[in-house]
This record gives sequence, C-alpha cells and structure tokens, in this order.
Amino acid sequence: MIAEIITIGDEILIGQIVDTNSAYISKKLNSIGVEVGQITSIKDTKEHITQTLNDVSGRAHIVIITGGLGPTNDDLTKKTLCGYFNDSYVVNEKVLSHVEKLFEKYVDTPISQLNRDQALIPSKAIALNNEYGTAPGMWFDENNVVYISLPGVPYEMKALLDNEVLPRLQQKFERPHIVHKTILTYGLGESAIAEKIESWETALPNHIKLAYLPSLGRVRLRLSARGSEREFLENSIESEIEKLQHIIGDIIKGFEGEETLEEQIAQKFVEHKKTLVTAESCTGGEVASRFTSYPGASQYFKGSIVTYATSSKNDVLGIPTELIDRFSVVSEEVTLQMALKARKLFKADVAIATTGNAGPTKGDSDAELGTVYIALVSEKEEKVYQFNFGNKREKVIEKAVIKAQEILLSYFS
Amino acid sequence: MIAEIITIGDEILIGQIVDTNSAYISKKLNSIGVEVGQITSIKDTKEHITQTLNDVSGRAHIVIITGGLGPTNDDLTKKTLCGYFNDSYVVNEKVLSHVEKLFEKYVDTPISQLNRDQALIPSKAIALNNEYGTAPGMWFDENNVVYISLPGVPYEMKALLDNEVLPRLQQKFERPHIVHKTILTYGLGESAIAEKIESWETALPNHIKLAYLPSLGRVRLRLSARGSEREFLENSIESEIEKLQHIIGDIIKGFEGEETLEEQIAQKFVEHKKTLVTAESCTGGEVASRFTSYPGASQYFKGSIVTYATSSKNDVLGIPTELIDRFSVVSEEVTLQMALKARKLFKADVAIATTGNAGPTKGDSDAELGTVYIALVSEKEEKVYQFNFGNKREKVIEKAVIKAQEILLSYFS
Repeated sequence: MIAEIITIGDEILIGQIVDTNSAYISKKLNSIGVEVGQITSIKDTKEHITQTLNDVSGRAHIVIITGGLGPTNDDLTKKTLCGYFNDSYVVNEKVLSHVEKLFEKYVDTPISQLNRDQALIPSKAIALNNEYGTAPGMWFDENNVVYISLPGVPYEMKALLDNEVLPRLQQKFERPHIVHKTILTYGLGESAIAEKIESWETALPNHIKLAYLPSLGRVRLRLSARGSEREFLENSIESEIEKLQHIIGDIIKGFEGEETLEEQIAQKFVEHKKTLVTAESCTGGEVASRFTSYPGASQYFKGSIVTYATSSKNDVLGIPTELIDRFSVVSEEVTLQMALKARKLFKADVAIATTGNAGPTKGDSDAELGTVYIALVSEKEEKVYQFNFGNKREKVIEKAVIKAQEILLSYFS
Repeated sequence: MIAEIITIGDEILIGQIVDTNSAYISKKLNSIGVEVGQITSIKDTKEHITQTLNDVSGRAHIVIITGGLGPTNDDLTKKTLCGYFNDSYVVNEKVLSHVEKLFEKYVDTPISQLNRDQALIPSKAIALNNEYGTAPGMWFDENNVVYISLPGVPYEMKALLDNEVLPRLQQKFERPHIVHKTILTYGLGESAIAEKIESWETALPNHIKLAYLPSLGRVRLRLSARGSEREFLENSIESEIEKLQHIIGDIIKGFEGEETLEEQIAQKFVEHKKTLVTAESCTGGEVASRFTSYPGASQYFKGSIVTYATSSKNDVLGIPTELIDRFSVVSEEVTLQMALKARKLFKADVAIATTGNAGPTKGDSDAELGTVYIALVSEKEEKVYQFNFGNKREKVIEKAVIKAQEILLSYFS
C-alpha cells in the first residue's frame, strides 16, 4: 500500500514556511501500515498540479494533497481537482451550514459569497468535516486511486487526518504491518559501528531494513520490518536486536519510544510525584518550552528561570558576584549554584541548570566556545557535567537541550 | 533559472524528521534570483534516485540533492550519482587530509577505511569543502544541468550552501531578479480582503503575482515580481502597494522584513539601548528561547522567569496568593503583576508577561479555554491586553508568542 503526499503552495518553494505537514502525515500513515513513497512540493498552478497528479497516479494507491483550498483566487486545488476528474460543483448543505456557524461565532465581518463558495464541492467527492476551518477536506475514489485533499493550515489538517481520513483508510484498505524500532547508541561513530556489525547487517533477512541515523553526538540504528503479521515482524526485530546486543551491547543505551524525550521525562516525574525547575542560561528557555508544549506539564513542571545576562544571575538568583568573577560565568561552580538556587526558589524536587558558550563570540565568559555545563540537583545528589559541543551556535544549543533532557531522564534510572 | 531540490532519506518519508533543509535552500536560492520549481523527497534506493534524476533533468537547470552521503551501506547518493554519470571514483587528497584532521581533533576511535573512503569522489565532480563534517559536497556539470550533492545534516548543509554553492551559482548563471514583499494586515479575513481588492488584483501586471497567507489571526499578502531589472520590479511593487493603500490602508499594519520578528525586536532594543525581561506562564519559555536563539541576545535580553505552576507565581515572583485567589491565575491583574515583578527583579527596562489557558483542560484557572493575557510594562506604560485564541493548544501557544512579540515591537513605534 503506497501513498504519496503532494503539498501545494509557493510559500514552501520560496522558503517562507517549513513543511511540517508531511512529517505528520507520514508518521500517521506509517502507524496504520501505509508506506509513503514520495513527497512532492509544487507551485499552485493548474499545470503543475495536473502534471503531478498524472505522475503520481501511476505509482500510488493513496494520494494526499495539502494546501490551496482557501477562498481566494490564488488557491487552485479544488478547481483543478474538479477539472481533473471531469466533474462539476454542487452545494454541500452540511458544509454550508458549518461555514455559516463559524462566521457567526468567530468572525466580525459578515459572511460573503466567497466564504459560502467553500461549500461548493465536486459532485464525485465526499466532503470531510473541517472542525477548525471553512475549507472541507475532499475524498475522491477514481480509477482505483484514492485522492484526499486537505487544507494546508497545520491544525486543521491534523484534525481532518486523525478524525476523518485515517479511519476511512483503515476501513477501505487491507494493509500490511510496518514496524520500526530505533536503537540508541552512544560512544561510537557511525562508520565504527558499521564495521563492527558488518556481518550481522549482511545477514539481515529481506523483510528487515537497517538505517544509520547519526545526530548530535549519538548514532541511532533504525530497524524497519514490513509484512502481513505484526507479531512475526516484532519477533524477528527482537531476535536481530538480541544478536546485536552480543556485538555492540556496550554502546546500546536504550530504544527510541514513540514518545519524545519530553514525554518520557514527564511520565517519570508524574509517576514518581516529583517536581521540576529549570535554570537556563545558554539554552535560553528552550528546555522549559519543550516541557510546556505538552498538556499536563503543570502536574510536575514548576517553571524556569532564564538568567541570560550575567547580572541576572546575581540580581535574580542571588549568586554572589565574587563567585562569578572568581570562576567565570560559564563554570562548574556557577552552574551548580544556579540549580541550587532555582530549586530552592521554586520549591522543586529536581533542578537542572545549563550554562555555556554557544558563540559565535565569547561574551562575558572565559570558557572555550562550545563549552556547556549542566548541573542536576535533587534531594539525593548534586552533579555537574562538562561538555564541548563544537562551534556552531544552533548545534551547541540543541545538543545542550538534548543532553539536559538525557541527564534528567537518567535521574530516574 | 529553475532549480529543483531532491531530499533523500527514509527518515523524512516515515515522518521521523521534518525537512527543514528545503526551506533554507529555497530561501537562499530565491535571494540570488533562482526560482525553485519543485521539492521532491524520496527513499534512498538506487531506483528512486535514478528515476527522480531522470524526471528532474528535463525540468531544471540546477538540481540540489541533500542526504545519503554517510559512510555506511544505507547511504547511496554518491554511488548512484557516480553510476548515473558513468563515472568512477578517484581519491581527493584534500578531502582525505580534511577527514584525517577531523578524526584527529574530535573523534576518540581510530579512523577507519570507511571514513577514508569519504574522500573517494567521482572524477567528473568538483569536491566542495564540508567544514563541519567528513562528507564533501559534490558539483557535477553534465548536459547543461548542474547537479549539487550536499550532506543532509542541517548545519553541514547550510555552511556548504552559503560558502561553496551560492558563490559558484552566482558566478556561473545570469539570473533574473526575484523580489518579494509581504504586507501585514490585521482585522479582516482573507475572503473579505479578496472582495475589497478584487479589481486591483485583476489589474495586476503579468510580472507580479499575489498570494494570500492567512495565519494566526492575520492575513499576509505577498507580492512577488520577477524580471531582469531589480529597480523596475521594486518600483512596480511599490506602485501597486500605493494603490492598495487607498483601498485597504486601514488594515495594513506594516511589511514583513527579511528579518524575523525576533530580529526586528532585537534591533530595536539594541538601537534604543533598552533591556528586556519576559515573564511567561502559558508560553512556557518559548518567547525567551526565540530571542536567545540569535547571537548577541545578551546585548539586551536579561532573561525570563517561567512561573508555570500557580504556586511559583507566589514563591518566585511574590505575587500575593490573595490576589491570585481573588482574580484567578489567568487574569489581567495577575499578568500585570508578573510583568511588574519580573521587571523589578531583573532590573530591566521593559517586561512582557503572558498568562493563558492553552487547554485542553482548564487547570487552575477560571478563564475560558483559549484566553490569553499579555502585559507590557516599561518606564512609560503599563498595559494589559486580552485575547481569545481558540481551542487548540499548539495554536494558542503559537499565537500568544507572536502576539507578545508584536506588542513588544509596538513599544518602539
């Protein structure tokens, strides 16, 4: 069962926005056993859309199209699809009443004909309810290919995909199972790992595929299996991992769950009834914002203190200026003090603190570019770790955030 | 001058990562007058890569390929390109010495043959220096199409694109100019705007294209012009905007710069020698982290206090429990107090505070889901704004962050 995704809109092709929709759709399709063969981003012209539909129709069973469903002239998806299937519009009364209700409830300006025209749907299409917007999704089943058109606004698209599209696909298609398992390794580069596991890799059965995913100081190994029986796939992946444990067991540190690091940490804190505070300098609030992006963070997350300026470390956290002067602002001592003071101030069980020199210049610090300290303080321990994350600002910040999360997770092990 | 981008790697097609590379590349190509016609994400198999290269060769003058350059067996881009151009490998001594140096300096394990093989380059290719990694970029000029292969790791790709690829493209190709200007409007929906400006839109000259970009409570109108003379394009866009001012001048609130909101705000603060603190509840540190993701933030950004838990508003900021009980934690009064206390604590000139109910449940607050308060406090004013940003958590947080930034920017106007 192969799907392809087509995203329509110049904003992607001129780099005005990043296409996050495709990753969301791909992940969801994979979870129900539908493989994504290709993602194509094109301009919103009739010619490009038609050409791409022609190309895709020969390769895929399912085509998911996002974007180009607005009420204005530059949005051509609905019109083009209608022409592509030699169809004509009919008014969908259910959509019309939904659009009218949305306007009544949320919009100050009166509803216009352009808005009402959102309810014009090609007669061959099933309209899919767009809870959060005026453009309905559309489902065409033509020449043994299902074409699904969704709005490009991410939260509208997500709700439509989850509530309308996936259940229909599950009902319509017999799907194989796709099982991914990603092994987390630390301590060896990808080429060093590849050499060690070469004979194991060569002997992998045909239904299992291996990918190396090097990133930020670690290598993840992803095993993907595809077939008709989930249990068989899961067992055969487990048996390959078992063999791998004998070869590189020393560097295997766990597995990537469906959950993000943030979610895993949140679960642990809630489960153990502990509370958390972060004291951030070089990470600038990013550690905190990853926790609070999930609902329920208030169950364990007390807050964060971002003392970005050196003076704020004294003004707000009360770290003595003498200590900062003596050891430098990016130092083991100052980082530990940040964690200790924040933990006390917020009355939290666990505090994690970050300081570092993300560059491109040294700022107030004496430390080498790329130096990051992370301190973990709890009722049972006070620890400070030192790292060097190299010389690109975004890389240093990202690595510091992930490392802080890994240290937090290790608190529970 | 048309370019296409091909991203290679299963991790995009299974939704394990979001493809941020394409937006970066598109933006940079546009800035030197190269239009991106299509972005295609495919699996790393020889068949897919070859098929896509065939398709693209007929449409584009420039093909940029990212990913699949690692040293391991699952990375097939270099091998496939070598075969596609009927070429064979030669050792590039400069790359070899670079790889050896990187290993000496940053890697604990000894260098292996797989690593050394990174220096094997198809003889027809020019190797492009990858400052931050072991896989060089490659530049092929075959049958009047330039093929450029870059690593998929974002910071490696970016440095290669900026330092090696763009200068070479500028030297090789005569390029037209592409000018974008994006108008920011507030207060009317896209269909209402479309009706008002219909006759203006119809009369637009052929070299100017209009796009409606509705997002998060505002509509941006993007005008794109393409031609051989930049000054002519800029003038004709200005003259169309002039006409538009007469029709919808009341809702035009400015223009989107090349800079992000964060950068615009940073510039203003530095220029006016003011300092900033954020006090965040519902935005959870996200406002702060956007500022600190840019170098030089320490020139104006003092820090942030994220009082996510209700108790922390009292423990850390000293907001009286009685006030919180009386007005509720999501209220005008509490938000104002957060800004006032944070400004004092951090000794900053300007403080911005956010509280809100992002959902999905009401938590400790009485306020309706989606309610957000934003307070701005400075030496000259104390203001609190109230909003309702609807009922999707991610949408509420994102809108609150952007609105807080807009309010900060308005402080200087």
